[in-house]
Amino acid sequence: MDNRITSLFGVKYPIISGGMIWCSGWELASAVSNAGGLGLIGSGSMTPEVLREHIQKCKKATDKPFGVNVPLIFRFAEEMMEIIMQEKVPVVFTSAGNPKTWTKILQENGTKVAHVVSSTKFAIKCEEAGVDAIVAEGFEAGGHNGREETTTMVLIPQVRKAVSTPIIAAGGIASGEGMLAAFALGAEGIQMGTRFALSQESSANESFKNICINLNEGDTMLALKKVVPTRLIKNDFYQKVEEAEVRGAQAEEIKEILGHGRAKKGIFEGDLSNGELEIGQISSMIKSIPTVKCIIEEIIESYNTKRLSIPAL
Amino acid sequence: MDNRITSLFGVKYPIISGGMIWCSGWELASAVSNAGGLGLIGSGSMTPEVLREHIQKCKKATDKPFGVNVPLIFRFAEEMMEIIMQEKVPVVFTSAGNPKTWTKILQENGTKVAHVVSSTKFAIKCEEAGVDAIVAEGFEAGGHNGREETTTMVLIPQVRKAVSTPIIAAGGIASGEGMLAAFALGAEGIQMGTRFALSQESSANESFKNICINLNEGDTMLALKKVVPTRLIKNDFYQKVEEAEVRGAQAEEIKEILGHGRAKKGIFEGDLSNGELEIGQISSMIKSIPTVKCIIEEIIESYNTKRLSIPAL
Repeated sequence: MDNRITSLFGVKYPIISGGMIWCSGWELASAVSNAGGLGLIGSGSMTPEVLREHIQKCKKATDKPFGVNVPLIFRFAEEMMEIIMQEKVPVVFTSAGNPKTWTKILQENGTKVAHVVSSTKFAIKCEEAGVDAIVAEGFEAGGHNGREETTTMVLIPQVRKAVSTPIIAAGGIASGEGMLAAFALGAEGIQMGTRFALSQESSANESFKNICINLNEGDTMLALKKVVPTRLIKNDFYQKVEEAEVRGAQAEEIKEILGHGRAKKGIFEGDLSNGELEIGQISSMIKSIPTVKCIIEEIIESYNTKRLSIPAL
Repeated sequence: MDNRITSLFGVKYPIISGGMIWCSGWELASAVSNAGGLGLIGSGSMTPEVLREHIQKCKKATDKPFGVNVPLIFRFAEEMMEIIMQEKVPVVFTSAGNPKTWTKILQENGTKVAHVVSSTKFAIKCEEAGVDAIVAEGFEAGGHNGREETTTMVLIPQVRKAVSTPIIAAGGIASGEGMLAAFALGAEGIQMGTRFALSQESSANESFKNICINLNEGDTMLALKKVVPTRLIKNDFYQKVEEAEVRGAQAEEIKEILGHGRAKKGIFEGDLSNGELEIGQISSMIKSIPTVKCIIEEIIESYNTKRLSIPAL
């Protein structure tokens, strides 16, 4: 395949690994890039100096393009961008903020820029800001999520109609069939979080990975809606939040229950009871923790097989 | 196309119109069947005698197969089934209940049976009950909805893995691209509610249809979760429910706010302020109210065009 996403990033496959906190270090990012996709380092759980270290290690581990994801509301965002530009990282994915703030500056530095949105309205703002690609992410995605709850199936064709910038679909995709569906809806690339979080190269705690591959449908839910909507596994911590939400607790109380550092506690340290366990709905379909290379090879094979089996009407 | 769904129902296209309250009378059902799909009469808003009248009118309006949707929790369910068997309706779609109750009885009477589910767990129960097809419906669908909030993108491939019965995908599908995505995920047919509710032949009130074709993303939301999760337009009635839900009102109070007959008031009588306006998320993509024939022709054309444009990997 040679399309606008593979050309833009200079990769073999239009498959991107989401920049996930506590999962997406240099090991995962370089493995994805080495397997022909575009690996992203997730800076959201790093200090600027830790990010620099991951970028430098990633460069040593792959000669292929890779990128960094930067949540723009992050207190270190500006320092992160300085480091990214100094280190000449070829690709940046921004999220949770205004795409106008950094797009031009990064592009003038030779960096390709994609921005993550959960609505067509913000996809249009991305195009106005001149981003090189738009990640459109549906309600089924893990972690932080949009307020409008638009699903991938509904979101992608509407973004497709509204903009001409290439679209990367995200949310609920973990297989070749899912990738094919995303392409049918108008995407030219996919970003997978959950599938790569549950790989050998992901830096998530082994107990976190193990609980994720044993989930059933309905075991994740969008919670914390009065603070920031976040898809979580329904563990003890979730139950506390849910109990408070059902009785009408307001944002202040929910924030207090949430406290600080719970995602690290859960995903990185493996505290399955008290941690904030962020993962996507599609985790219920995932039953193994393969290498990144196996994941990508299987997706390509099933994409191609399924593509040929779809009949004309 | 000739697949298990077209063979099962004896139709040209594996496109089914959902049996929607206040929308799906004999006019809509017969129009869908005449255009090559399978039209369903929605019995959920009818008395048994009104259903008989609709079946008889539908028979006169088409010589093609059609069906009736029966919510099994409905107080008239048993009388509905008697009438359906007396009238020798070729297809029944059941929902909201146990598929074991009626499947065999209907099949012995020569009727094909499909059952609607929102989870793989219930899809397996359907297969055990011996249904002829399974409708798997995602979170983005309008009206009554599952509690697990699994989206179409996530649900279909998991149901596909778990059962060998043919699958009809529902929820978020209103175009050829959506149909193609559903087939990529493993469906062999699609059921569309929202798209056909907003057709010339739908018996919904014109003001309801008009408000629906002017919605933006985020203008529907899953509400009434403490009673029965239902996707609604965010009108004045929704705001009342939402205000109560945010402050933690319990099921009893929500039921009182809901009262009785609100769906009729909204969808059939066109009270856009006080009615319960049930419609799917994909309504935000729909901007016109064509005839059923135009809808089906456009879907077929865009399905076939998009299918040929998806590249190999």
